[in-house]
Amino acid sequence: MKEEKDSSTGGTLSQDSNQYQIGIDMGGTKILASVINSNGQILSRNKQATAPEQGSEAVIERISDQVDSVVKKAKIKKEQISAIGIGAPGPIDLDNGVVIFAPNLGWHNVPLKKSLEEKTGLPTHLDNDVNVGTLGEYAFGAGRGKKSVVCIFVGTGIGGGIIIDGKLFYGSSSTSGEIGHTIIKVGGPKCGCGNRGCLEALASRTAITKQLRKHILIDKEPSLLTQINGNQLDTIKSGSIAKAFRKKDKVTVKVIKRATKYIGIGIASTVNFLNPEMIILGGGLIEALGNKTMDRIRHFATKYAIQHAMSGVEITTTQLGDDAGVIGAAVLAKQRSNK
Amino acid sequence: MKEEKDSSTGGTLSQDSNQYQIGIDMGGTKILASVINSNGQILSRNKQATAPEQGSEAVIERISDQVDSVVKKAKIKKEQISAIGIGAPGPIDLDNGVVIFAPNLGWHNVPLKKSLEEKTGLPTHLDNDVNVGTLGEYAFGAGRGKKSVVCIFVGTGIGGGIIIDGKLFYGSSSTSGEIGHTIIKVGGPKCGCGNRGCLEALASRTAITKQLRKHILIDKEPSLLTQINGNQLDTIKSGSIAKAFRKKDKVTVKVIKRATKYIGIGIASTVNFLNPEMIILGGGLIEALGNKTMDRIRHFATKYAIQHAMSGVEITTTQLGDDAGVIGAAVLAKQRSNK
Repeated sequence: MKEEKDSSTGGTLSQDSNQYQIGIDMGGTKILASVINSNGQILSRNKQATAPEQGSEAVIERISDQVDSVVKKAKIKKEQISAIGIGAPGPIDLDNGVVIFAPNLGWHNVPLKKSLEEKTGLPTHLDNDVNVGTLGEYAFGAGRGKKSVVCIFVGTGIGGGIIIDGKLFYGSSSTSGEIGHTIIKVGGPKCGCGNRGCLEALASRTAITKQLRKHILIDKEPSLLTQINGNQLDTIKSGSIAKAFRKKDKVTVKVIKRATKYIGIGIASTVNFLNPEMIILGGGLIEALGNKTMDRIRHFATKYAIQHAMSGVEITTTQLGDDAGVIGAAVLAKQRSNK
Repeated sequence: MKEEKDSSTGGTLSQDSNQYQIGIDMGGTKILASVINSNGQILSRNKQATAPEQGSEAVIERISDQVDSVVKKAKIKKEQISAIGIGAPGPIDLDNGVVIFAPNLGWHNVPLKKSLEEKTGLPTHLDNDVNVGTLGEYAFGAGRGKKSVVCIFVGTGIGGGIIIDGKLFYGSSSTSGEIGHTIIKVGGPKCGCGNRGCLEALASRTAITKQLRKHILIDKEPSLLTQINGNQLDTIKSGSIAKAFRKKDKVTVKVIKRATKYIGIGIASTVNFLNPEMIILGGGLIEALGNKTMDRIRHFATKYAIQHAMSGVEITTTQLGDDAGVIGAAVLAKQRSNK
């Protein structure tokens, strides 16, 4: 371990002892904060409700309190934190650290980086939650040791992040990774983006829920799902879908089989076009559905990809679960601080 | 310009004077060879028929003769050539410089790099023709000064190459860039790769020819194309298609409009997923169809892409034409020699 002269104290200080980062994962419902060391290990945790209805200032104030709380809990000094990393939903102005638009939070052009730096006194680095999750899985999760990785998160939408040569690849408008908006079925169902046939419109939890509701409520197909999901289908939880799927509920099996086939085809296109070393699938529904569904996704990815292209690609699932966000945010803080 | 002491002569020698490369573009019908300087300028040219029926040894012998010929024609010494670069069709074993399979040439596992090095005495670097063309357009064509570029060549098939951070991105199986085999219409027409709905099966010249033949020969739709193409439709030249298109031949216009819409959609997916700085379209048909068709492709790319993602992306056409292959091969030779 490299020892550095600490001029302020006259003594020596291990470089690592000043190498903690705080990772923050801000979602629409909850905010997770952690102190993380250079090995990606979590030293302390804090979880708060986002409560976006109180306005952005109140949310940022609460995050600042979380920072103090996790530092105290980790039994370290604030001076030992090199930087804060934070993942937030929605498109981000990376140059200025601004959340451009986050419908879940009701935020428009919130200067999150600057506000948090002012409140905490710590350098803060902001990116969107999908990129941050990708960075976490790449650095300390399923993608460890790989050079090129594509992460795909299946949730309300389908988001993704791309790692090339060990770094997030941002692209010309900092939007790269939007695999949910690759068109895989021209003329297919309408997507939230305004087009038709996007992967997201075929296989996201929103698309799956829509299809389930249609089969059960309009086509009147019999299903266990209503009962499993608390006698309503307005919002259907990933857990309910997975439970109905495991119980071999006919409608649920049909819809999930269709969606996972499309995910497999979307992966095949990624394998053929980018040919990364690894594709990591994550998100609540993927985790809830388990190995059998992953086998099905792999089957269709392999069927639709060029054999030689697929030969170098591993398809796997996320390993960090809910921790990917805070760990990735800490990696972001570390990488950006070193620039 | 950096001057170097040339120990063999005792005098000084401009580094550039030893910095010529030979670029070779090997196709199924012709082989182009050129001496190229470090500014991508062509000093001499030679063109031979490939005549693959004479066997790989004869073809390689002829390439070796072409090397001597272009050196002589450029009025330089062979010692001033640092390396040969060569682009060949088909999948390539990059590590060993072997053409794995090239149906146009009837080649299986031909050790092109080694054979050419033995015959010419010059270090030789081999890659597939699509990667080499991409490198040429990136370094000295439409992509100059960009960092991330995707090249798409529409021909018999649809191939592509990816430049990231100024280098070819090869991927885990060295197959990246196969945009022709991204699936954009699940359940669509059968593709040569065995699947359905690939971009190549919808918009390559092969797909276009197939559709034209169906409309004219099976559906008996009236068309000027038969007459334009020499009273037969067994093989339809890009020039004939472009001519019929310009003459507003109804069938041709219908087929080209459909194909270019699909190309636009394929580009939109690329913009959303990878978000490169530039997308360069090339190939005989694209060149023959001209600006109006490019406008149509841009229209559909813009319509199907996320607005913010598209904002940073330029869509343009190749600038080097038939020279992209030799120039790109020379760039390959230079880049690999510097490693």
